[in-house]
Amino acid sequence: MTTAGASVQFATVTTLVLLRHGQSAWNAENRFTGWVDVDLSPTGEEEARRAGRLLSEVGDLRLDVCHTSVLTRAIRTAEIALHNAALSWLPVERHWRLNERHYGALQGLDKSETTRLHGADQVKLWRRSFAVPPPPLDEEASVREVSDPRYRLVPPGAFPLGESLSDVVVRLRPWFEEVLVPQLLEGHNLIVAAHGNSLRALVYKLKGLSEDEVIGLEIPTGYPWVFELDASLGVVSDRYLGDPAAIAAATHAVARQADANR
Amino acid sequence: MTTAGASVQFATVTTLVLLRHGQSAWNAENRFTGWVDVDLSPTGEEEARRAGRLLSEVGDLRLDVCHTSVLTRAIRTAEIALHNAALSWLPVERHWRLNERHYGALQGLDKSETTRLHGADQVKLWRRSFAVPPPPLDEEASVREVSDPRYRLVPPGAFPLGESLSDVVVRLRPWFEEVLVPQLLEGHNLIVAAHGNSLRALVYKLKGLSEDEVIGLEIPTGYPWVFELDASLGVVSDRYLGDPAAIAAATHAVARQADANR
Repeated sequence: MTTAGASVQFATVTTLVLLRHGQSAWNAENRFTGWVDVDLSPTGEEEARRAGRLLSEVGDLRLDVCHTSVLTRAIRTAEIALHNAALSWLPVERHWRLNERHYGALQGLDKSETTRLHGADQVKLWRRSFAVPPPPLDEEASVREVSDPRYRLVPPGAFPLGESLSDVVVRLRPWFEEVLVPQLLEGHNLIVAAHGNSLRALVYKLKGLSEDEVIGLEIPTGYPWVFELDASLGVVSDRYLGDPAAIAAATHAVARQADANR
Repeated sequence: MTTAGASVQFATVTTLVLLRHGQSAWNAENRFTGWVDVDLSPTGEEEARRAGRLLSEVGDLRLDVCHTSVLTRAIRTAEIALHNAALSWLPVERHWRLNERHYGALQGLDKSETTRLHGADQVKLWRRSFAVPPPPLDEEASVREVSDPRYRLVPPGAFPLGESLSDVVVRLRPWFEEVLVPQLLEGHNLIVAAHGNSLRALVYKLKGLSEDEVIGLEIPTGYPWVFELDASLGVVSDRYLGDPAAIAAATHAVARQADANR
């Protein structure tokens, strides 16, 4: 038997679903992608369809708003998944702060090129540390990115040239505090379709993880991760939708790929 | 030579692109669809891809916001077209006031059923008049529609049971005045993906058409209709993107289909 207080404290107030986009053309080629706007591969589209079917199989799931980054692979993951869950009508909000970690001058390189250019020890540090950023994007590529109209709302001086995971945590914070938290506190159930590192940063904030925990956090692609939150946005429960063995295999595959090209 | 005044008066300030969704499964079967949430057919998906290619071929087109109804066939038309124009990142706003005309008790019927049930003269009146609504939706079907969460923002008493084109003009007005006009006056370039009759109602307001003119207005599916507007939202120019002969044929096909099942 629970007391009334405990029952209030642990009552689920709102639902937050996280969805990491599936394979992109560059994931398939093992290249650093970051803010380069690479589309989903056919495999990634199929992962999004599966995510939609998994969402549609949850009988009592009510979603109110969908959030995406401004990168096509996350946007199309949301579109395809919601279509397959008969939820195309959901209101959608996009924000650059949900983008993938900016990989700076590594964007476009594959692992062997990167090792050749920078050495294995340095590459390991970029892949494995919380706070070491990649080498910055060169000026020409940066000017091209900054002039993309999808980034017109990036405040002056905030445009990244290359980010550590720690930098992603910092730039996600205004969105987390000013958009996500207020909507959850108002009782809206949200789905966020985004990227490995922006979702890590989100879970770091949500669960109060340590730096080591967030570095070790591997999020499988294309499996909806459902959080039930209480009135203080404490995590009552969280679970992936889908077959546990398939999810474990997908998580293992993501960890291996991260070893190769994070 | 123009005077300074004339040049100011006719300067294009903002762009509005209208896009009527392509063929749905029920369009293909010649059934009244209205608010029933029927998806695009493969032909309709191809029409949306073509619209995207046409948009991407306009060198100087800058779009800022996309508006859709809350019906899947318009939403997916926008998604597919914008994806094919490398514009998936556009902010999107949805509104039930952009929905197709509500066809009441005719929803789901095909033309021969409708004529058998109601007689040819009556059907012609529903198809051809500005202000005669169809017979109202029965209570059971109405309760089902009203309880759909996509319609939770419909004000009490505003939920339609069956609409004439005149009714569509009336219910579109708050969106036109409170959403569309302010965004255009702020200089945003907009694309609106919607339906034959909600787009007619929009153009009726925008161009100040007569009732006879709007009843005779046939909008081809899947061809972007680009309006250039001045600072008073007067129409400086409007043109369809695409091959003129193909657009004429598509307009003729739409008019014939309307004769059959409007």
